[in-house]
Amino acid sequence: MTEDKSRQTEIDEVRALTATTRRATVAALEDILYQIIPVLDHGFIRVVDYMGDDDAVVQAARVSYGRGTKQVSQDAGLINYLMRHRHTTPFEMCEIKFHVKLPVFVARQWIRHRTANVNEYSARYSVMDREFYIPATEQLAAQSSANRQGRGDVLKGDEAARVLQLLKEDSTRAYDHYEEMLNEREDGTVIDEGRQGFARELARMNLPVNIYTQWYWKTDLHNLMHFLSLRADSHAQYEIRVYADAMMDVLRKWMPLAADAFEQYRMGGAHLSAKGLEIVKRMLAGEAVDQSSSGLSAREWRELMASLGRSEES
Amino acid sequence: MTEDKSRQTEIDEVRALTATTRRATVAALEDILYQIIPVLDHGFIRVVDYMGDDDAVVQAARVSYGRGTKQVSQDAGLINYLMRHRHTTPFEMCEIKFHVKLPVFVARQWIRHRTANVNEYSARYSVMDREFYIPATEQLAAQSSANRQGRGDVLKGDEAARVLQLLKEDSTRAYDHYEEMLNEREDGTVIDEGRQGFARELARMNLPVNIYTQWYWKTDLHNLMHFLSLRADSHAQYEIRVYADAMMDVLRKWMPLAADAFEQYRMGGAHLSAKGLEIVKRMLAGEAVDQSSSGLSAREWRELMASLGRSEES
Amino acid sequence: MTEDKSRQTEIDEVRALTATTRRATVAALEDILYQIIPVLDHGFIRVVDYMGDDDAVVQAARVSYGRGTKQVSQDAGLINYLMRHRHTTPFEMCEIKFHVKLPVFVARQWIRHRTANVNEYSARYSVMDREFYIPATEQLAAQSSANRQGRGDVLKGDEAARVLQLLKEDSTRAYDHYEEMLNEREDGTVIDEGRQGFARELARMNLPVNIYTQWYWKTDLHNLMHFLSLRADSHAQYEIRVYADAMMDVLRKWMPLAADAFEQYRMGGAHLSAKGLEIVKRMLAGEAVDQSSSGLSAREWRELMASLGRSEES
Amino acid sequence: MTEDKSRQTEIDEVRALTATTRRATVAALEDILYQIIPVLDHGFIRVVDYMGDDDAVVQAARVSYGRGTKQVSQDAGLINYLMRHRHTTPFEMCEIKFHVKLPVFVARQWIRHRTANVNEYSARYSVMDREFYIPATEQLAAQSSANRQGRGDVLKGDEAARVLQLLKEDSTRAYDHYEEMLNEREDGTVIDEGRQGFARELARMNLPVNIYTQWYWKTDLHNLMHFLSLRADSHAQYEIRVYADAMMDVLRKWMPLAADAFEQYRMGGAHLSAKGLEIVKRMLAGEAVDQSSSGLSAREWRELMASLGRSEES
Repeated sequence: MTEDKSRQTEIDEVRALTATTRRATVAALEDILYQIIPVLDHGFIRVVDYMGDDDAVVQAARVSYGRGTKQVSQDAGLINYLMRHRHTTPFEMCEIKFHVKLPVFVARQWIRHRTANVNEYSARYSVMDREFYIPATEQLAAQSSANRQGRGDVLKGDEAARVLQLLKEDSTRAYDHYEEMLNEREDGTVIDEGRQGFARELARMNLPVNIYTQWYWKTDLHNLMHFLSLRADSHAQYEIRVYADAMMDVLRKWMPLAADAFEQYRMGGAHLSAKGLEIVKRMLAGEAVDQSSSGLSAREWRELMASLGRSEES
Repeated sequence: MTEDKSRQTEIDEVRALTATTRRATVAALEDILYQIIPVLDHGFIRVVDYMGDDDAVVQAARVSYGRGTKQVSQDAGLINYLMRHRHTTPFEMCEIKFHVKLPVFVARQWIRHRTANVNEYSARYSVMDREFYIPATEQLAAQSSANRQGRGDVLKGDEAARVLQLLKEDSTRAYDHYEEMLNEREDGTVIDEGRQGFARELARMNLPVNIYTQWYWKTDLHNLMHFLSLRADSHAQYEIRVYADAMMDVLRKWMPLAADAFEQYRMGGAHLSAKGLEIVKRMLAGEAVDQSSSGLSAREWRELMASLGRSEES
Repeated sequence: MTEDKSRQTEIDEVRALTATTRRATVAALEDILYQIIPVLDHGFIRVVDYMGDDDAVVQAARVSYGRGTKQVSQDAGLINYLMRHRHTTPFEMCEIKFHVKLPVFVARQWIRHRTANVNEYSARYSVMDREFYIPATEQLAAQSSANRQGRGDVLKGDEAARVLQLLKEDSTRAYDHYEEMLNEREDGTVIDEGRQGFARELARMNLPVNIYTQWYWKTDLHNLMHFLSLRADSHAQYEIRVYADAMMDVLRKWMPLAADAFEQYRMGGAHLSAKGLEIVKRMLAGEAVDQSSSGLSAREWRELMASLGRSEES
Repeated sequence: MTEDKSRQTEIDEVRALTATTRRATVAALEDILYQIIPVLDHGFIRVVDYMGDDDAVVQAARVSYGRGTKQVSQDAGLINYLMRHRHTTPFEMCEIKFHVKLPVFVARQWIRHRTANVNEYSARYSVMDREFYIPATEQLAAQSSANRQGRGDVLKGDEAARVLQLLKEDSTRAYDHYEEMLNEREDGTVIDEGRQGFARELARMNLPVNIYTQWYWKTDLHNLMHFLSLRADSHAQYEIRVYADAMMDVLRKWMPLAADAFEQYRMGGAHLSAKGLEIVKRMLAGEAVDQSSSGLSAREWRELMASLGRSEES
């Protein structure tokens, strides 16, 4: 609480500082600048800086001297065109910087997106906070039987309770022992003056990957959309998807035209394989195609029918 | 002329637009935002956007909630430390976007810096401007005899005049023929209604690499400094070095502390090889080392003595 | 001729050297290793090294100790799955290195693919060869009237002849003057002992962008496929597409399973936008949709109908 | 044991397969190809593929048709020149692929090197092995008092014993509970048929970061050397430095000339700051400089004297 308060004070102070700028400025993003957007039980994202707006995409595409055109409809048309035809370089001309608090196992997935700048809190240099991700009851999912890297039904009764108990107890114990090894408590007080304390860079190895870490993460709009296309996708693990969803909301505030184009041409819709396209053509020509006559495996047929909204045929 | 005027009008208009922002803002950079900084005979750089300031480096290094510390001396100390110890990630947290006009042969060197975002004027889509780089008289250098990729003395008299004449005449003729093949003049008027005109993406192949192109180029501070360390260096070709020098001036306005640290720990100073370090140690111990006793080749010995300011010994 | 002969001798010599290796080896690629594959009038690609095979993708996906599985059908299934679901990292585990000779204006498009390693012949250090791309008669296309960055019909009669004449004469003259400024001929002989010669790094600025350059270009399989998806596409300029086509042939020899998956799931097929998908669903449900009821612009409707093979409806 | 045996069998089988190749081949690297090189208590590196040799650097620098020159001395001279003058692109033309087994906290440092290809064992898809890094007694270091991210003396007696006990017990318990939550043992057997089992992607969050993971890691020579320059450095944490040291040994086998140049011009030697260089010049001119007259902070003065081997003066 006290820590949350001092954190909020710092945020309020930095939000109170304003300046006049000639740069492209987005009022809807300024409104939420620096503010905590909660994700999971202890995590968050917050926007700490940004560069550019929808106009900046247009301006870069035209390599122009002024801003974009004055007519929104023309700008929207160009942005849609660029997105549809994969002219990605103008989207790289906008940049956003987030401060993110996230569990280490989520950070390990996230960091695989290499075209970004990252500065992470150092557990070699500093003592980690005592904060662990414990899933909400409705996220205590069983292993999926159909998909080796997916979730099935939510665990019930005793099994759910036992899992929660283990996660909580092991997190607490691991952190207690971390403090003991460090010979230092989270608040910086020394436990036993007679001991030396195990090096921070070593003691941290006792901590489980549901502990929260923090980083500054900065990327350009093109790579942000690539991140979202993979991580706001239904195949992504829930614990990273909620971060992507929160960032998608930020994108809508920041660049409404680019966000629309992204949802229309990248996130929405479907990619048909060469065979899938042939099947659609046959069906449009009136042929009754089923899996056996499709040339597709059962799995691919099911996926195709699902994407065409014909799950009854899968 | 008229074009320069309309360009200036666009720049003045965009400079006149201001907004209030909560973002880090640098007054010295706002002063020159969007303005043309001339380079070479027809080229320029101009800053079209930026993200972050010296504080933002500190803030990222600390993964903090507010801005950096309030004391400049502490911030400078941290920035120097980060630079000295090659902790590069906090410097990646600032970003700058330039609009650059530059000869194609300079663009071809520049583009080799891959960690940047680029959107170039398209000669497939548009007609190129009739602007060519013609070196100033004092840059009409002879081939160096010592260094295969360097320049020697300035050409004299007839040889200089002849080179200038050839460069000018060939540029003019190439552009005349470009227009003729396009069947279209620079101003967009059709030359001969009875002809079709050669495709733009093909006709441009007649243009020499001293023609000017334009692009938006955006990079983070770490990669900007890497660019400057190679291109503001005396081994870089003069025609790209002048761009790097102009960007170095921008850096000093934008981030005075980071610029100082960069000049102190990266641009200035010298790198000693393992053998070079041993020689310095022997000399400091009072030994009179010469090339034959140094174990270095004549060339490396010369380079070492030059970097130690002892060129009399080379 | 003589130069071509000495080049062929060097290639024959290096092809004659063989060694025993424990590495994954692809016989079909060894067959053509180092050999010139002609592209355009003076250009080529040739494979100078490679790492990995189809098995290596499987091996990396499984992080296994041995090679992939022994059954081709299983490997193909896994490779198709990875491609379909955009699991791209295993494809990054194979690498290929090309030596490419190409016109400078093609090199300028090509270099925009940043995730590759490049070492180019240096016109600062060396004298360029007298070789220029002159399009074949059937490539002398007029500007497209429908697409600003496209080609229309082939130029006819006098206009075609005049374009060819200009390209040839200007190339020849530019090179003659390049030699004159250098005071050195292509074969290295000095023209006039009484002159100094203009620096190489400057004299090259007189050369048009249809001159040929050369580079070593190395990339991983994932990024090669990304390159091919954009450059073997019908929207790419013909002069780069022919290089991509030649590399696609190499890919089929090198990694037949990955090449199949790439053609099935990436190159072939079609991407439907969110609206496009809705229209397909309505059509499959038996509704007669036309442009006015589609909600699409005329252009997008035309593109959608074309991709569905229903151009009569566009 | 049994697992180690089956692993060795797989390795022996793949080592027994040989083929004839026209590619550059390095006998000293073929000798150790695929073999386990142990690092830490359960980790390893092993080379699973490579592309190129010292000749390939020369060949790329010259953009040549054949291999490098036949004279080793000339090749060494060129390689030294390239390294000294930071001409890095020819070094990017060689590639190496490692299979690495490493603790998760080491993997988290390692992955910050973005210019590499990585495919990691998936804890969403598979069950992790029961293998944890437990430091050897001589690595049980206390926190450094001088350097917040460094180690001090080795812990003694009871404190060391207690740390070892905690690390071992917590690892064991965390894995026991991981199995219990999964309802599945390491060997794949189900624990209780009446339970569903917690999803793998969730249960793994209980595991501490000293658990071992595995990945395939591939990079080019230039980026490998960059990795080594930071991670084989004395400031790097011991647990990643031992991996870098093992890779440095591999580099010496693979490319002896490049490895020599790297040690001479990058790893060895010292970088002097602008002020540091001035001080060396003054000392070489016979002036007795001490910290107070140096203009350096106490810390920088100490670092400079240490690098000049004059620690008595610090």
